[in-house]
Amino acid sequence: MSKIPNRILLTENELPKQWYNMMADMPERPDPYINPQTMKPASVEDLYPVFAEELCKQEFATEQYIDIPEEIQEKYKMYRPSSLHRAYALEKALQTPAKIYYKYEGSNTSGSHKLNSAIAQAYYNKQQGITHLTTETGAGQWGTALSMACAFYDLPLKVYMVKISAEQKPYRKAVIETYGGTVIPSPSNTTNAGRAILAKDPNCTGSLGTAISEAIEVAVSTPNTRYVLGSVLNQVVLHQSIIGIEAKMQMEKIGEYPDIIIGCAGGGSNLGGLISEYMHDRLTGKKKPYFIAAEPAACPSLSRGKYAYDFCDTGHVTPLARMYTLGSGFIPSSIHSGGLRYHGMSPIISKLYHDGFLDEARALYQNEVFDAATFFAKTESILPAPESAHAIAAAIQEAKKCKETGESKTILFGLTGNGAYDLAAYMNYHSGKMEDYAPTDEELEKGFATLPKIPGIQE
Amino acid sequence: MSKIPNRILLTENELPKQWYNMMADMPERPDPYINPQTMKPASVEDLYPVFAEELCKQEFATEQYIDIPEEIQEKYKMYRPSSLHRAYALEKALQTPAKIYYKYEGSNTSGSHKLNSAIAQAYYNKQQGITHLTTETGAGQWGTALSMACAFYDLPLKVYMVKISAEQKPYRKAVIETYGGTVIPSPSNTTNAGRAILAKDPNCTGSLGTAISEAIEVAVSTPNTRYVLGSVLNQVVLHQSIIGIEAKMQMEKIGEYPDIIIGCAGGGSNLGGLISEYMHDRLTGKKKPYFIAAEPAACPSLSRGKYAYDFCDTGHVTPLARMYTLGSGFIPSSIHSGGLRYHGMSPIISKLYHDGFLDEARALYQNEVFDAATFFAKTESILPAPESAHAIAAAIQEAKKCKETGESKTILFGLTGNGAYDLAAYMNYHSGKMEDYAPTDEELEKGFATLPKIPGIQE
Repeated sequence: MSKIPNRILLTENELPKQWYNMMADMPERPDPYINPQTMKPASVEDLYPVFAEELCKQEFATEQYIDIPEEIQEKYKMYRPSSLHRAYALEKALQTPAKIYYKYEGSNTSGSHKLNSAIAQAYYNKQQGITHLTTETGAGQWGTALSMACAFYDLPLKVYMVKISAEQKPYRKAVIETYGGTVIPSPSNTTNAGRAILAKDPNCTGSLGTAISEAIEVAVSTPNTRYVLGSVLNQVVLHQSIIGIEAKMQMEKIGEYPDIIIGCAGGGSNLGGLISEYMHDRLTGKKKPYFIAAEPAACPSLSRGKYAYDFCDTGHVTPLARMYTLGSGFIPSSIHSGGLRYHGMSPIISKLYHDGFLDEARALYQNEVFDAATFFAKTESILPAPESAHAIAAAIQEAKKCKETGESKTILFGLTGNGAYDLAAYMNYHSGKMEDYAPTDEELEKGFATLPKIPGIQE
Repeated sequence: MSKIPNRILLTENELPKQWYNMMADMPERPDPYINPQTMKPASVEDLYPVFAEELCKQEFATEQYIDIPEEIQEKYKMYRPSSLHRAYALEKALQTPAKIYYKYEGSNTSGSHKLNSAIAQAYYNKQQGITHLTTETGAGQWGTALSMACAFYDLPLKVYMVKISAEQKPYRKAVIETYGGTVIPSPSNTTNAGRAILAKDPNCTGSLGTAISEAIEVAVSTPNTRYVLGSVLNQVVLHQSIIGIEAKMQMEKIGEYPDIIIGCAGGGSNLGGLISEYMHDRLTGKKKPYFIAAEPAACPSLSRGKYAYDFCDTGHVTPLARMYTLGSGFIPSSIHSGGLRYHGMSPIISKLYHDGFLDEARALYQNEVFDAATFFAKTESILPAPESAHAIAAAIQEAKKCKETGESKTILFGLTGNGAYDLAAYMNYHSGKMEDYAPTDEELEKGFATLPKIPGIQE
């Protein structure tokens, strides 16, 4: 066979026409969502005021494959199929016998995989006749992706952006505005939730919890308006399955099957998307690749969290999900620069981990993560997003093990995004003042103390 | 024939193995460089103290094709061949019968086409045993590309960055440092040129001219050190020919030949690269595509400049070239946000324009350019670099003409880079305070007054 190319490409005719739904093959499914008003299991209709109906249905869907509407396929074709890369330069620099591959999702303007779900969510809302969307954004990756998707479907979008982020990241605001989104620093005086907080503290710099509360308040109180979310939910994991379906096709083209699959994990959308059809092989007993979730030591929801019912937001307005969580009151230290700061984890990913199908959650310290990011940039040329660099760091660890043992394992990891908008974190790293940090057991206990009590379910 | 895809891809086996040299087919070549010390035509050896020898030879080369060394091909394969895009969404939004294509060079981390020449220049320096490189950067695009290339070849790099730029664009500095480059705000106390300026004005915020002088001083006074430049030179146009060679292959794959080819033009490296093999067709009489150089009204070197000998830098240390120029003393107004601020133009491009092979130089006002950039982003999804948006604006003008006449012309333009690092310019545009500007005739005369007198050649 001729040499495997640096980039394994697919034509747009090969773009997957269906998403894969891991729920179909799981021996046990995640526990049901709980309605925060009734504290009873939520029905699909309970979610209608917040999300588009088709997306609510996807939240509960158990079909193995779900058609990707042609209009979404057309939008995907502007930047997909994405490339799979053989990391020849990285392998050489590491002097490892391992074969390293990565699936690169950062070549679109939003800079990350988030666009895959943003397009789908904007489309289904448009189809239903929804005329306005709201969302929140912290670092800005999701707000950017959604503003692009809303431009494609001519949907006005309000992005509640954590005030301190909006001030510190004016460029993120500028991209969102270029695509037509409106950025509202949160807390704002446009909602009851925002006004209440400002009344107490006019100088409040905001939090993701407050931003979610504002975005949902506007969605449920404005005609024809809905809220959208960029991670955690089952629908998002479903949309992101296109990453793994493509990756598997690309690996098959060159006759490869990964021994180890590594994804970074914050809310779980990328990891869930990357493993998708490989997890199908595992769940159905065909193959047994080894799955690693790479997460920050500063926010170790899988490796040190509890599998419990929790709110998806710190504002406590969303349904409760059973997931690995540090407690919605857990706030990662501000000295952590690497992203992936979410307190919980996708219910699907959580269940797979709980039941032993996801093999390992590996917590990484940020200096090792940025060492890996810089080493990767210098060898493979792409500047990775700090989130993605968690997966790189874990892949390098595995490749070094191969060097020791002489094994030529095949490693696949997800490179979820590029770091063009994350240079403040790199500057922090270059300054030499980046500190490694992991919460103490006491700090974790404080977070767990914020877990909700649910009569008859979680006392 | 089946529908033309959104993205026309090439495999890495199809990566061009030779650069194309327009000099070979030009009925008359550009006038020779002049040595600024002797004011006589420069020999290839005159350039050796400044540039690597192989690059000096390329500066004078007249062969039609020059082999791309395999080691350079290997580096190119990490991000090339680049994709050619059919702008379906843009066409639809414009309701034009024109078919619009663009060659996208912005998907690598440096964000632009500059990497194509940076890799080649770093390689040839490394081959010669050069151990250190110097360069200057203004906005930072070239400094970023070169720092990446130097990382590949393990070559220490000093980037003299205009001080005000280094202060205003800390993220650019951070990328360059991530790839191992050293950024020195210019003027600095590391050179005689810098110290002399600081002695006069300790608060001097710097200029490109000063930065070039510092970079060249270090190169010629330090053992095994050379200087590299990202545009204007013949060698750079040669390296960038890979853009046009690929684009022509891609267009041929789908049975298309462009009626109109549009490139943005600052120093001319992108335009020269994009037109390359299409210009071959024109020069050899095979075909007659219509070539448009899109430039800013604020810095209209081709459309309002003089075809004359001038210094390539404002510091007057480089060889003199005959080119279209506004005079090395011309400084574009600070209200201009769109890049492409160079006072001159590649000698090859200048000669082609002077002799009527490059058909038109079109000067565009910046509000129209940013209108086009935003319209393009919302339809085609990619956020363009402001430089590239000059070509987009001209392409939209041509597509609108087609709508009026009903003609279905085929338009190809170069999308040289993405705008991820240019959001300050977009913010200026969003503020509604962006002013259109073109120099008055009087302002141009002041620039022309700085043209050098060369005994017997230019009095």
